[in-house]
Amino acid sequence: MANPTAAVLVIGDEILSGRTRDTNTYHLAGQLTEAGIDLKEVRVVSDDSDAIIAATQILSKTYDHVFTSGGIGPTHDDITADCIAAAFNATIDVRDDARAILQAHYDRQGMELNDARLRMARIPQGATLIENPVSTAPGFQLENVYVMAGVPSVFQAMVATVLPTLKGGAPLVSTSTRIERGEGDIAGPLADLAARYNDLSFGSYPYIKNGVYGANIVVRGSDSKAVAVATRRLIDLFSDAVR
Amino acid sequence: MANPTAAVLVIGDEILSGRTRDTNTYHLAGQLTEAGIDLKEVRVVSDDSDAIIAATQILSKTYDHVFTSGGIGPTHDDITADCIAAAFNATIDVRDDARAILQAHYDRQGMELNDARLRMARIPQGATLIENPVSTAPGFQLENVYVMAGVPSVFQAMVATVLPTLKGGAPLVSTSTRIERGEGDIAGPLADLAARYNDLSFGSYPYIKNGVYGANIVVRGSDSKAVAVATRRLIDLFSDAVR
Repeated sequence: MANPTAAVLVIGDEILSGRTRDTNTYHLAGQLTEAGIDLKEVRVVSDDSDAIIAATQILSKTYDHVFTSGGIGPTHDDITADCIAAAFNATIDVRDDARAILQAHYDRQGMELNDARLRMARIPQGATLIENPVSTAPGFQLENVYVMAGVPSVFQAMVATVLPTLKGGAPLVSTSTRIERGEGDIAGPLADLAARYNDLSFGSYPYIKNGVYGANIVVRGSDSKAVAVATRRLIDLFSDAVR
Repeated sequence: MANPTAAVLVIGDEILSGRTRDTNTYHLAGQLTEAGIDLKEVRVVSDDSDAIIAATQILSKTYDHVFTSGGIGPTHDDITADCIAAAFNATIDVRDDARAILQAHYDRQGMELNDARLRMARIPQGATLIENPVSTAPGFQLENVYVMAGVPSVFQAMVATVLPTLKGGAPLVSTSTRIERGEGDIAGPLADLAARYNDLSFGSYPYIKNGVYGANIVVRGSDSKAVAVATRRLIDLFSDAVR
């Protein structure tokens, strides 16, 4: 049976402008692979309502799970929650459960739950809250979309909350073998090997280091024994060039 | 007049599996911003023909320029060139100009231009070659799509070749001001400022460092004087918390 599929939607002008490096996708990609959920697509869109709504709708229809990152804070440019609501024709307003969580937090801090902070309690009708153990303001799940913060420590904490609740498939196992030979020399034998073990995927990721050409060959599949056997065969083929 | 728009299409199972961190997008995003070209969307898709073709077609229609990364080497999993050709109904075969470039290179190296390496001379009809000063095998431009290698050093060299040929718009200038105060306190005055300078964009990117909350406020626009004035006003508003 095929594994569940997933997409990531990153909301962020700051990524598109080249100011900030997106690290959330890399983190989540690794976690999903471990969980046996196949990440099929990533999109980064700007802080623009139409773009966010359109991407949410198409990704939600196409994949089993969609994870969003960014745009759920208290400032005027935090528009993700409203966009997700709009994408599903859900109403959105300050919700009592989210407000109570924030109220308790700011009471403990001796700080005021002002209008800006109250924006973080705007949750679409029908959504389930996602706990935020780092900075309190919750994310939420609506339909198959998980809406999470952009701050990496908060994003990672929310991922840790959400992932164990999802049904994973067979975790993919993989090996990576570094072969210090040009891809042009590797390609022929590698294609033969890939044809022979056609239940596995064989990826070749070339590198150039100090002027020397090589490639990392990744063998991936859900049958760990087959992966091991194919990797052994690969190493035999290029034994003098494995580094 | 609005700036030209762009999208990036990253082809790579290795990114989606979490094995490799995509660095090409970050590099290109910064370069595009400097050139006055607005990066509007990034997509990462798997090494799957249908996914690559569909993404190429929609991005090519939606944006002025599309830059792809990955999948143009000699191995069996390098399918980008064929997919780009298919996306535009162009034929594709080994082309004499590309073959000559590779032949000269491998002659110099005393290496054979074997069948695998010859795959890198498969160029769609009507495409223009993009020089590869690092490892020879060229990229190409077809319609408004620039097809470039995934290896970061090669990708960057190709970007350096292509970007000066594109017509840019007004380069956006931006300032980033670090304010060590919770976003909930910044949000109100910041929204007022954003409303007052509505030709500029104001982004708030929160952080938590050693348990202390703050945000980097980015002011961005094409009028550098207006950006400077608004940033000065921002600093005045939060003078005791600017770090």
